[in-house]
Amino acid sequence: MRYQLYYWPTIQGRGEFVRLALEQAGADYVDVARRSARSGMGLPALMHFLEDEAVIRPPFAPPYLKAGDLLIGQTANILLFLGPRLQLVPEDEASRLWAHQLQLTIADLVTEIHDSHHPIASGLYYEQQKAEARRRAADFTAARLPKFLDYFEQAMQRNPDGSQHTVGAALSYVDLSLFQIVAGLRYAYPRSMRRLAADYPLLIALHERVAVEPRVAKYLASRRRLPFNQSGIFRHYPALDQSPVQPAP
Amino acid sequence: MRYQLYYWPTIQGRGEFVRLALEQAGADYVDVARRSARSGMGLPALMHFLEDEAVIRPPFAPPYLKAGDLLIGQTANILLFLGPRLQLVPEDEASRLWAHQLQLTIADLVTEIHDSHHPIASGLYYEQQKAEARRRAADFTAARLPKFLDYFEQAMQRNPDGSQHTVGAALSYVDLSLFQIVAGLRYAYPRSMRRLAADYPLLIALHERVAVEPRVAKYLASRRRLPFNQSGIFRHYPALDQSPVQPAP
Repeated sequence: MRYQLYYWPTIQGRGEFVRLALEQAGADYVDVARRSARSGMGLPALMHFLEDEAVIRPPFAPPYLKAGDLLIGQTANILLFLGPRLQLVPEDEASRLWAHQLQLTIADLVTEIHDSHHPIASGLYYEQQKAEARRRAADFTAARLPKFLDYFEQAMQRNPDGSQHTVGAALSYVDLSLFQIVAGLRYAYPRSMRRLAADYPLLIALHERVAVEPRVAKYLASRRRLPFNQSGIFRHYPALDQSPVQPAP
Repeated sequence: MRYQLYYWPTIQGRGEFVRLALEQAGADYVDVARRSARSGMGLPALMHFLEDEAVIRPPFAPPYLKAGDLLIGQTANILLFLGPRLQLVPEDEASRLWAHQLQLTIADLVTEIHDSHHPIASGLYYEQQKAEARRRAADFTAARLPKFLDYFEQAMQRNPDGSQHTVGAALSYVDLSLFQIVAGLRYAYPRSMRRLAADYPLLIALHERVAVEPRVAKYLASRRRLPFNQSGIFRHYPALDQSPVQPAP
């Protein structure tokens, strides 16, 4: 099946978690909003699903995926749907629920990463909430980020099928998403990540292994992979990336 | 099957979305942390799953549900699992994905409701982030809340099976969750909700209808329903509930 992915064309953002799954599986897909509007794609095609009142089950925000007649919104929901079809999750129900549970926890972390630079309003610029962002980012790097990383490291440690993966004995969409989390955090919070890295050997090793998966490596080297930038979820503001003397309680 | 629900025993919080589904279905369940520790339940039973290293697939935070051998975390994931078993979602895959997509958008709204009184750190008191909360709540009531309510109202309007429900032709777990959203917002943001109510006739009518569903009504009148309070997701701080002269752009 040919999939149509709809996401903002200039950032990795939440769409990247879906792109990585499609790329690793070698799926046939179009990143619609990055194609030209003249070809019937581009931003107008993306906006159609947000704005046209004739859309019966509209998404709240990108990313969304078109698969035949289905239109699926919410990143983790898209991966719930794609996982079995792309063979990026084990077959049994318990493992699929567990993978989805981890993915939803990744989604929570992604929101907290975003809010570390936008704690007041997503509709305002960073510069309009810089003081608040410094306070929130200090708590994020000292308390929240380690709490999330502890959890994912622990999930790998306790995986009965081996600590190379989060779910089962093979690469899953959760592993791909955790690769993206580590890559993004290293871009946005390099000092904090250098300070924390030693505590998360399994997550760091997972990042290294995913990066050299042949299809992922090819994707990362291609123009399909957008660079990190200051408009996405992961933004590098040195003022927010301070190493605390001691973590908050 | 007998279900064990694990959630903080003194607040509605995220657990309430699961409680409402179990109650409406007349399911056999135990709200474990509200029972006594002497009976082997209570808070120690809840903490076991968060703290015991022998737990193979641990949850990140409550709520979680035990169903036989399965331990399921993340509110929306629990409802994804329970929906078909409690007959609170249509049978077809498209409707189930749509219901889950709406539930994940409700989860996003719940996080924004929480962060309206805790924009800096969930580990600090409201009083330690009051100035920031005023700024965030102003944006929340003027911009974010109407955006979410517009979306859910629209989902009902466009439902081909009738505008009394969000998904299909019968009451679903999404409808129950939207009941809770309206109830909680009326507690936390009464002024804003009075101002906004006229724009959301379908959501308000849904709230009224769910409240008088016999099993829901019985639950709401029982001691099993905890009252709203100043420790949950929905908190009433008059300083945060100001009617703006004009909404932010």
